[in-house]
Amino acid sequence: MHSLRINADRLWASLMEMARIGATPKGGVRRLTLTDEDRQARDLFARWAREAGCSIEVDAIGNIFARRAGTDPAAAPVAMGSHLDSQPSGGKFDGAYGVMAGLEVVRTLDDAGLRTRAPLEVVSWTNEEGSRFTPVMMGSGVFAGVFALEHARAQKDVEGRSAGEALDAIGYAGQARPHRLAAYLEAHIEQGPVLENERCTIGVVQGALGQRWYDVAVTGQDAHAGPTPMALRQDALLGASRLVQEVNRIAREFPDEARGTVGFMQVKPNSRNVIPGEVRTTVDFRNAKAATLDAMCAALADAARRIESECRVRIELREATCFKPCEFDAGMVAAVRRSASALGFRHRDIVSGAGHDAVYVARVAPTAMIFVPCEGGISHNETESATAADLAAGCNVLLQAALEKAGVAGEARAAA
Amino acid sequence: MHSLRINADRLWASLMEMARIGATPKGGVRRLTLTDEDRQARDLFARWAREAGCSIEVDAIGNIFARRAGTDPAAAPVAMGSHLDSQPSGGKFDGAYGVMAGLEVVRTLDDAGLRTRAPLEVVSWTNEEGSRFTPVMMGSGVFAGVFALEHARAQKDVEGRSAGEALDAIGYAGQARPHRLAAYLEAHIEQGPVLENERCTIGVVQGALGQRWYDVAVTGQDAHAGPTPMALRQDALLGASRLVQEVNRIAREFPDEARGTVGFMQVKPNSRNVIPGEVRTTVDFRNAKAATLDAMCAALADAARRIESECRVRIELREATCFKPCEFDAGMVAAVRRSASALGFRHRDIVSGAGHDAVYVARVAPTAMIFVPCEGGISHNETESATAADLAAGCNVLLQAALEKAGVAGEARAAA
Repeated sequence: MHSLRINADRLWASLMEMARIGATPKGGVRRLTLTDEDRQARDLFARWAREAGCSIEVDAIGNIFARRAGTDPAAAPVAMGSHLDSQPSGGKFDGAYGVMAGLEVVRTLDDAGLRTRAPLEVVSWTNEEGSRFTPVMMGSGVFAGVFALEHARAQKDVEGRSAGEALDAIGYAGQARPHRLAAYLEAHIEQGPVLENERCTIGVVQGALGQRWYDVAVTGQDAHAGPTPMALRQDALLGASRLVQEVNRIAREFPDEARGTVGFMQVKPNSRNVIPGEVRTTVDFRNAKAATLDAMCAALADAARRIESECRVRIELREATCFKPCEFDAGMVAAVRRSASALGFRHRDIVSGAGHDAVYVARVAPTAMIFVPCEGGISHNETESATAADLAAGCNVLLQAALEKAGVAGEARAAA
Repeated sequence: MHSLRINADRLWASLMEMARIGATPKGGVRRLTLTDEDRQARDLFARWAREAGCSIEVDAIGNIFARRAGTDPAAAPVAMGSHLDSQPSGGKFDGAYGVMAGLEVVRTLDDAGLRTRAPLEVVSWTNEEGSRFTPVMMGSGVFAGVFALEHARAQKDVEGRSAGEALDAIGYAGQARPHRLAAYLEAHIEQGPVLENERCTIGVVQGALGQRWYDVAVTGQDAHAGPTPMALRQDALLGASRLVQEVNRIAREFPDEARGTVGFMQVKPNSRNVIPGEVRTTVDFRNAKAATLDAMCAALADAARRIESECRVRIELREATCFKPCEFDAGMVAAVRRSASALGFRHRDIVSGAGHDAVYVARVAPTAMIFVPCEGGISHNETESATAADLAAGCNVLLQAALEKAGVAGEARAAA
């Protein structure tokens, strides 16, 4: 382990200054991708990175790469980053933390006059949230070759403006060509309650859950609640409620970090004294293993058939989305775990339930993530909160892991 | 039993001509109370009743009483009726059948030159549906002293117009004073599937189910569907779904025609990848016996407490409406049953699941109802359908029961 430590106060101050751009009255941030607020955040980040001695490159989808040169001109960079865009009612830490943490690593190295063998890059990916333009994780997806540039640029917001137009308008459609990364590290708030619940400071992220989403239609027959005896009903909401129970049962019974959620429900005709004839709902299944995820989906199909005959309704399941589980690079994950251990932080292995830029970058570079707790597990919310101490801890883990991967010029590699 | 029979074709033709007023393209009727369509329907009914030799009186809430004189000037009238207003997307038979059946009884007696001892009245009650102005069963409620006239007149529609203004505008705020009824008989389509399901032509209605309605709020904590493990969730929709199951279980386990329905549900934030933090829903419980209805409500409260602890949510139950069960007059019910038997119709005792004008009239006069099947039990729907044969059967039962109660002048009362 290297003896160097980041400056916790400076990291916090940077996060707070960044959070003034698009600040909301309730203490959150509204910084939708490719808006003027996003431009201001990008400009601030680029200015700070230049002041820290970095050169700035922007690629065609607007991803910003702030490079701190290494001593080996042939080495591919070790990258650190996340995103600066937010949800419509987002928090101060989701995304911004990973970018500011990367910047803090660079500033810390500057202060110490330390050079790395491989260059370091701090990356801000375009449109991770997907709130204004779908798909989510657009910039990292284009970088990793998941989406074509022109497909991404053609996506439109609700006002009919394309992502390409918006990108051109804020002046962030650049010329940088895709390049190889030696490694990618992303620090992020957990956005879930596990670390806080287990009093851990660091989550060593193994990968991300696979996701299979369904649109569900339950069809019965609407009828007057009074004159229709229980035995003669075809109650679509009764069927849909059974499905909610089954989704929950399946997620609790299956292994490998299984999650099952019904988040959406629309009832017709939705009148208190009419038996519902139709319900539209959704299922969101997640699992760390593809085979287990598939088995959950098979169990759902079985449950739907049972409910159909027991409740005299028809259930249609239509798959809406499918993301395979992502496993991060074992060597990168080990580096994060080693750093957390060496620094003496309580840590645990964890799997990300949500998608992150790291999931796409993992397709083209050895990747890992570092999670820190957020209060109550709450995110995508203006009340999102994290402590300066936890944020500093994650940034120190990032520093150690980055130094391990990039190598410190003129020093032997730190032992575990 | 009297040998007289109604004219099935004339009854059908009257229903079809009445259904032209407010006819919808899909074969239904939109004849909201106190609109110009309602006025046209009232005018047509009043004209037909006058042509059948009746005198017309209208009371202050717009109920129309078409009286055919009897031979005994001191006798209170035997009334038959229902309502001419419809749901926004209603059918041709709900309500109109009971009024047209009463008119057909009068026309049949005219054709035969038969006089009754007591006068007969055909009544059209104002605003049974409650679609434009609440409360439902407004006219019969005012007649029975359930609501004050001024309270009813003060009710406003969504455009802010009061029932009193609407009543004045169509010229149906009359002068008739409340009067005593010797008996009240209401023929109506069942609006449920029981008669059709059991191949019965006539339902001998014993009374109406009591109703207790609840507004329900289920509160959990919204959270991201991915990062939140199953054990740490406070899923309001999971809790609400359990409640739907419990409402169904209670209604199936309790005796006395128990019904339990959840017809309304609103989920927040209602996004497929967010665990719902709040659900607003409703419970509609019905039962023929007040004590059993109360026991169902107690079982619901118990279930809610169990779900609260098992799903880590909070459940608030707020009673929204309470109607006590209604038992019709035993002598009147027996008269309907005798008539159905004597005419050779397959019949069964049945309890009305829905409210009807008869439920309020029963508070001030010996009352019974006659149900006939409707196709698939479907009502409050433009596709509402009933056969001419069944409608005629119900009207013949009405004729026999009315003759039994009013007495035929110059004839011995018909034996059972």
